[in-house]
Amino acid sequence: MNETEQLMQYFMRRATVRQYTERPIDPALMERMIAAAAHAPNTGGMQLYSVVVTTDPEIKAALSPCHFNQPMVTQAPAVLTFCADYNRFEAWCRASNAQPGFNNFESFMAAVIDATVFAQQFNTIAEVNGLGCCYLGTTTYNAGDIARVLHLPKRVVVTLTVGYPHHPVTDDERTERLPLEAIVHHDLYTDYDDRAIATAYAEKEALPRNRQFVAENGKETLAQVFTDVRYPRDAAETFSRLFRDFVVEQGFPFP
Amino acid sequence: MNETEQLMQYFMRRATVRQYTERPIDPALMERMIAAAAHAPNTGGMQLYSVVVTTDPEIKAALSPCHFNQPMVTQAPAVLTFCADYNRFEAWCRASNAQPGFNNFESFMAAVIDATVFAQQFNTIAEVNGLGCCYLGTTTYNAGDIARVLHLPKRVVVTLTVGYPHHPVTDDERTERLPLEAIVHHDLYTDYDDRAIATAYAEKEALPRNRQFVAENGKETLAQVFTDVRYPRDAAETFSRLFRDFVVEQGFPFP
Repeated sequence: MNETEQLMQYFMRRATVRQYTERPIDPALMERMIAAAAHAPNTGGMQLYSVVVTTDPEIKAALSPCHFNQPMVTQAPAVLTFCADYNRFEAWCRASNAQPGFNNFESFMAAVIDATVFAQQFNTIAEVNGLGCCYLGTTTYNAGDIARVLHLPKRVVVTLTVGYPHHPVTDDERTERLPLEAIVHHDLYTDYDDRAIATAYAEKEALPRNRQFVAENGKETLAQVFTDVRYPRDAAETFSRLFRDFVVEQGFPFP
Repeated sequence: MNETEQLMQYFMRRATVRQYTERPIDPALMERMIAAAAHAPNTGGMQLYSVVVTTDPEIKAALSPCHFNQPMVTQAPAVLTFCADYNRFEAWCRASNAQPGFNNFESFMAAVIDATVFAQQFNTIAEVNGLGCCYLGTTTYNAGDIARVLHLPKRVVVTLTVGYPHHPVTDDERTERLPLEAIVHHDLYTDYDDRAIATAYAEKEALPRNRQFVAENGKETLAQVFTDVRYPRDAAETFSRLFRDFVVEQGFPFP
């Protein structure tokens, strides 16, 4: 097995890690990993992001309720908050007699994509170095609170917790993925008919842990667990308004 | 030098590739790379994305004006359009007697982040396999046109061109990055004062190619090249309105 093949095996077998040992992350290693991640692609060489590396237990405790007290936030040796950031770039523009025109939706999208690409490159690099990571979707739910805790002048996107895995990833911890035909379209997008949908989700629905999930929640179908329990409309609409208000407050008026 | 170290060297030295040889990409390799990329983290196991792999020369030609005729689109053996996609997931919900509540801004953000993480994982995997890639920022500028060309029912985010590099990446093709202190904050965000900004951008401004860029564009400062030439306010505001209309048309009313 050559090196590329070994790497492909890693990519196929990686998984989110939510439990960590108490081993701290060497600050020099953290620095090297972030430096390497910063070589990820970005918009026009502007690097429209910053990362806040939180290791102080008090600040992690203050962040914890923003993430609905998910235990990873206080247990992980480091919490990385990746920010879609025009603050630095605009400060440079002002210092250089240049008039920035970035307070708009298009620019917001560019910075969100930059920060996410940077975060994912960091995730891969951390995993290659033996660490485990977990993205926190709660970041866009409570972006305003996170911004206050971290003194952000602008724009939070995603948060990663990072630490050494408590135990090797087990097969049960590897979340299933849809079959490739369900996510790839050749040349043009072919819409899904009932049969294609049934085929795409058949394996997922048949998994014992997913069947158990349906039963535990008193639901009829696995999809209902997603729509009624995990991602209900009411909560999404509330968080949409909150995040919109935050984005506007941070200086990106919607067009 | 051990394997992790070799990989860190790759991450530090990678670069965008805009010129490709005519060598096509083996479809079996493309499939394996996408399968591996699909193991990237995603929101709640929903995989809120699809990818359209375009290799047909006629469809690439139809995509070309959507990307302002950047030559990579027709020259690259494959153009991958990563879509933030609820279409498949909602079809499954409907087929499973579950009521989806995803037509909102929060859900839009989740799918944008999922599609971007997936795209970046693919980018890394393609590079590890000897291919080169280029993100096309034009995707959010002309999302509606791209959606029409590719028959998308919903939601485009980023496009990657992929092919075998025309030549090994030269030092001059590696875009400079800001010093680490300019992008990392420890525990809390420390805002940049004038001196910090000057230090952050000093190296970038001093590079011969960037000085030449300023001179060629008849500008006073490098920042003016960004604000007046590359990313002017008028264009960003126009594309913001277009992208907003597209997002709303695709079923994500803004809150």
